[in-house]
Amino acid sequence: MDLTEKTLETREIFSGRIIKVRVDTVCLPDGQESTREVVEHAGAVAVVALDGDNNIIMVRQYRKPVEMVLTEIPAGTMEKDEDPLLCAKRELREETGFSADHWYKILSYYSAPGFTDECLHLYLATGLTDGEIDLDEDEFVETVHLPLKEAWRMIFAGKIVDGKSIIGIQYAMGRESNNTFSA
Amino acid sequence: MDLTEKTLETREIFSGRIIKVRVDTVCLPDGQESTREVVEHAGAVAVVALDGDNNIIMVRQYRKPVEMVLTEIPAGTMEKDEDPLLCAKRELREETGFSADHWYKILSYYSAPGFTDECLHLYLATGLTDGEIDLDEDEFVETVHLPLKEAWRMIFAGKIVDGKSIIGIQYAMGRESNNTFSA
Repeated sequence: MDLTEKTLETREIFSGRIIKVRVDTVCLPDGQESTREVVEHAGAVAVVALDGDNNIIMVRQYRKPVEMVLTEIPAGTMEKDEDPLLCAKRELREETGFSADHWYKILSYYSAPGFTDECLHLYLATGLTDGEIDLDEDEFVETVHLPLKEAWRMIFAGKIVDGKSIIGIQYAMGRESNNTFSA
Repeated sequence: MDLTEKTLETREIFSGRIIKVRVDTVCLPDGQESTREVVEHAGAVAVVALDGDNNIIMVRQYRKPVEMVLTEIPAGTMEKDEDPLLCAKRELREETGFSADHWYKILSYYSAPGFTDECLHLYLATGLTDGEIDLDEDEFVETVHLPLKEAWRMIFAGKIVDGKSIIGIQYAMGRESNNTFSA
């Protein structure tokens, strides 16, 4: 069966700093009509940064949508037409002060494809060198260094609850256990 | 430092079937003002369903925001005040026909806390029994059974690109390799 939903009409709802919102009227595979609410996002990058002692560099920041301080891997929204890797290097440096000798692309994924097109590009950064933090005007973050295994335990204790961070930490744990995780 | 951002004003933008959108004017930790765009979502459940041969049950469906058919673990939005476990059981049955003898709560997480409050509750389901599929009116999905290890490889080949599915498959792979993943 062709599962494609053709757009019959698009209604623009909102154009903000970070997101745009639209409602599409679509033709379903059986010919019926329905509507789909879509949050447009420019995409983002996130960085699993590991130091020589296998600590993962994370940041604590207040997240207004969930009204909580979350512990997350460094991340940021891409600027228009920005290269994801350059954006990842910039965000790691700005949020934590670190630059890295080695960069490896882990994967790209959609955070919540039921209602948003946000695509996240996830990188591994090693060979870290400390430097100056340089935050955006409206950005307030604290850097924390956590042993990787402790970060992994925090996922299942409900203390790390951010999707991109969970994917990145699980990846880094799997990378350590070559026996079972190699293809 | 107290990282909390106090809300000075809330402007409602949109109230749809799946999401609501608002813009909050906030007071930053340094006393300056800024705005935060927030997509409100009722929350969702997702199910890692493994059969006796260690196949994971997944569904293929068209996702309008990304204009693609994605391969995902069964999932669905919660109804108001619905219990997440009951919702998970319902969604697994409706989308795939399966019911399960054993249910285990893996974790809850935020899909994209930079702009939405969507919380996802992730379950492991085993002891599967086949039954009737019963989709929503505007829902068109195909069920696929994949060996768990093949699903895991598909993540890094860019063929499974859905966040909740990546977290669930990584968890199921880690669960198999007790040596390295046990706390």
